[in-house]
Amino acid sequence: MEQQNGHAPDHAADLKGKDPDATDFANYFCTYAFLFHQKEMLEDHKRTGAYYTAIMQNQAQFRDKVVLDVGAGSGILAIFAAQAGARKVYAVEATAVAQHARKLVQHNRLGGIISVIQGTIETVELPEKVDIIVSEWMGYFLLRESMLDSVLVARDKFLKPGGALYPSHARLYVAPIRSNLTHQRQREFSNAMEGWAGFTNDMQRYYGVRMDCLNDAFHDEQKQYYQQTSAWADISPQQLAGRPWCFKQYDLLKVTQQEIIDSFKEHFELQIVEAAPIEAFAGFFDVQFKGSPENPASFEVLLSTAPDPDCGTHWGQQVFHLYPPINAQPGDRISGDISISRKKENHRLMRVIFQHRTTPNQPQPQAAGMKLQSTDRTDFYSIE
Amino acid sequence: MEQQNGHAPDHAADLKGKDPDATDFANYFCTYAFLFHQKEMLEDHKRTGAYYTAIMQNQAQFRDKVVLDVGAGSGILAIFAAQAGARKVYAVEATAVAQHARKLVQHNRLGGIISVIQGTIETVELPEKVDIIVSEWMGYFLLRESMLDSVLVARDKFLKPGGALYPSHARLYVAPIRSNLTHQRQREFSNAMEGWAGFTNDMQRYYGVRMDCLNDAFHDEQKQYYQQTSAWADISPQQLAGRPWCFKQYDLLKVTQQEIIDSFKEHFELQIVEAAPIEAFAGFFDVQFKGSPENPASFEVLLSTAPDPDCGTHWGQQVFHLYPPINAQPGDRISGDISISRKKENHRLMRVIFQHRTTPNQPQPQAAGMKLQSTDRTDFYSIE
Repeated sequence: MEQQNGHAPDHAADLKGKDPDATDFANYFCTYAFLFHQKEMLEDHKRTGAYYTAIMQNQAQFRDKVVLDVGAGSGILAIFAAQAGARKVYAVEATAVAQHARKLVQHNRLGGIISVIQGTIETVELPEKVDIIVSEWMGYFLLRESMLDSVLVARDKFLKPGGALYPSHARLYVAPIRSNLTHQRQREFSNAMEGWAGFTNDMQRYYGVRMDCLNDAFHDEQKQYYQQTSAWADISPQQLAGRPWCFKQYDLLKVTQQEIIDSFKEHFELQIVEAAPIEAFAGFFDVQFKGSPENPASFEVLLSTAPDPDCGTHWGQQVFHLYPPINAQPGDRISGDISISRKKENHRLMRVIFQHRTTPNQPQPQAAGMKLQSTDRTDFYSIE
Repeated sequence: MEQQNGHAPDHAADLKGKDPDATDFANYFCTYAFLFHQKEMLEDHKRTGAYYTAIMQNQAQFRDKVVLDVGAGSGILAIFAAQAGARKVYAVEATAVAQHARKLVQHNRLGGIISVIQGTIETVELPEKVDIIVSEWMGYFLLRESMLDSVLVARDKFLKPGGALYPSHARLYVAPIRSNLTHQRQREFSNAMEGWAGFTNDMQRYYGVRMDCLNDAFHDEQKQYYQQTSAWADISPQQLAGRPWCFKQYDLLKVTQQEIIDSFKEHFELQIVEAAPIEAFAGFFDVQFKGSPENPASFEVLLSTAPDPDCGTHWGQQVFHLYPPINAQPGDRISGDISISRKKENHRLMRVIFQHRTTPNQPQPQAAGMKLQSTDRTDFYSIE
C-alpha cells in the first residue's frame, strides 16, 4: 500500500523558489481550517475556563456595561460578556470566522446584545466608547504572533477612562530544565549531518559533482533549525531544575504601542536546586484578570501556562536548547540577560538572545597558574 | 518528559486571524530550509539521474551550445550541461539559493562556462539567445505550483528557432486504485465528527453555549479536508485496479502561455481489470527528453512518476478519494471527463473535477418497473 513519508511534501514543492516575491513558502489558503482551529482553542478548557470564570465571577463589573471583544473568533468571549449582563457587546473579527460567530450569537439568542463586526480593529468604527475590552490575544511565549498590538490600538481608540482590560496584566518567565527533546534534536542534527555526508559522496560518485564546498552552509542551516530554533513542548514540572524567574511584567492599561514594538532586554537569575545538566531554558507566561484601578475585579483570576502535571494549555512552553548543556550543581546560579526582538524580515517572528554565566555555589579550587574558566556564553534563538 | 503533540502548533497560533490581508496562514521565512530541500530533490536519483542521462547521453546536442537553466536551484543541471560540453550556460535562480549555486560552480571549476544570475526569468536579461533550455519545473500532479509558466516565458524570450527544451514533452495520467489511505481518511473524518459532538456537549455543559448550529459548517469543512483534498502518496503498482489512461499531452515547444493558464477538460476511460472497490483515482505524470525536431536527442529519456515497486520519486502520486467507492467488476469501464483549473483565490493551487459514470461489462438484469440506477457522479477536489 501507499507510503506516507514523514516529510512535508507541500514544503518541498514550494521551495522550488518559484515565487521569489513571496517570503512565505507555505502560502496556501486554509479553507478547511477555520472551525477546526476555533475548536482546538475553545476546548483548551484551562484557557476558556479562565476567561469564563474571570467574566462570570465578575458580573458586577460587566452588568449593563459596554464591552469590546478584540479578535473575537467564534465570539465566545462576547457571549460570556453578554451572559454576565453586559448591555452591549461589539465582537470585532477580521476573518471569515465572523460569519460563524454571527450564527452562534443568533442561535444563543444574544443578537440583541452582541454585534459581530467583520473587519480589523485598526479600521473599524464603533458608535461609542467601551467600558471593558476582552481579548484572547496571547501567542506562544506570549508575544509570538500576538495580537497585543491590536488590543492596544483598541484600548487607545475605544476604552473609556477608568475602563478595564480582561486580562489586565501579563508576565514572562524563564526556568532551567532538563530536556529529552534537546537530546532528540541533537540526534536528529547528527543524523542530518551524516545524511549530508552520504549525499555528497553520492553526488560525486554518480554525477562527478563535488558539493563539499557547501558543508559549512548545510551545517549552519541545520544548526539553526535543530539547535537555534525554539520548540513547542508540554513540559512536566519534574523537568524543572530550579524555580522559574519572572523577567518581564506588563500592565496592559499602561504599556504603550511603541514599547510592544521595540526590542527589550531584561535581567534574570536562576537558582539551581537539582543536580542535573541544564539542557534547556523553558519560557512561558501568565496573564491576570484584575480589572482596572477604578473598576477592580471582585474575583481575580490567574491563567498560567507554567508546566502543569495535570493540564497543559495549547500554548505549551517554549524550549530553548542549550548546546552544550550547563553542568550545574544545587546552589549554582545562572544569571544574565534575555533580549527579545522582532525579526526585520518578518515581524511576526522573534529573536531571543540569552547572555548568561553560571556562578558556582562552591568556589572551585584553583590550581596554581590555571586560569579560572569563564562560563560566559551567548545563545541565540529564533521563535518561528 | 515533554509531550510533543501531533498538531501543528504554528498553525493554531497563526489562525487567530491576526493578519487578515494575508491569505497565507503559515507565513514564515524558512531560513533553515534552502539546502535541506535542495538535497531532498537532488537525492531523488530517479529524477536527478534522468536529467543526468538525458544530458550526458546527448553530448552531441550540448557540445559548444548555449544553454539556459530556468529555476536553477543548486545549479546542478547547469553543471551537467557544462560537463556535457556546452560553451556557455546561464543559470537563472530567483532565490538566495543562487549564492550556493555560485559556490558549487566555482568549486567544480566551471566558472568559465556557467554564469549564475539571481533574478526572475521574467525580468532577467541575457546577452544572447540560447540553443537549449533545461529546467526541472514539474510540481505535484505536474501542474501544481509548477514553474511551467516561467519556462514558457523563457522559451518565448530566449530560445533560438529550432532550439530544444529538456524535457520536451509531458503527459498526465489517471488510474483507478484501491487505497488504504482513503479508508484512513474516512476514519479520521468520523473521529473528527465524534470529537465535534463531544466538544459541543462540553461547551453546553461547562459554559451554557449552544454550538450545534455550526454542525453543518464543521462537517463541510472537515469533508473538504478529508475527502475533497487530494493527498500525496507513494502508490504501489499492486493498488492499480486497471491500466493508467493518458488524458493530456504537452508538446512544450508548441504549448502557449495562455493554454497553461486556462482551465481545460479532457476525456478519460478506465478499463477495470481487478474485482475491487475502486477507492480512489490516482494522478501522476511523466516527461520525455526528445530534443526538438530540428535538433532531436540521440538518446531519448523518459522520467516517469507512475507507481513503481522499487523506486518512487519525491513527487509520489496524487490520490483523489472516492466516497463512496465504486464497486466495479473486471471488464467494467469508468469513463468521463477531468476538468482542471487554477483557484481564483490562489493560482498556485488547483481544482480538479471528475465527472464520470461506470458502465458494467455485463448489463444488469432489470426487474419490471425498476429504473436502471444511474452511476453518474461528479467528484470535486482541491490540490493544496
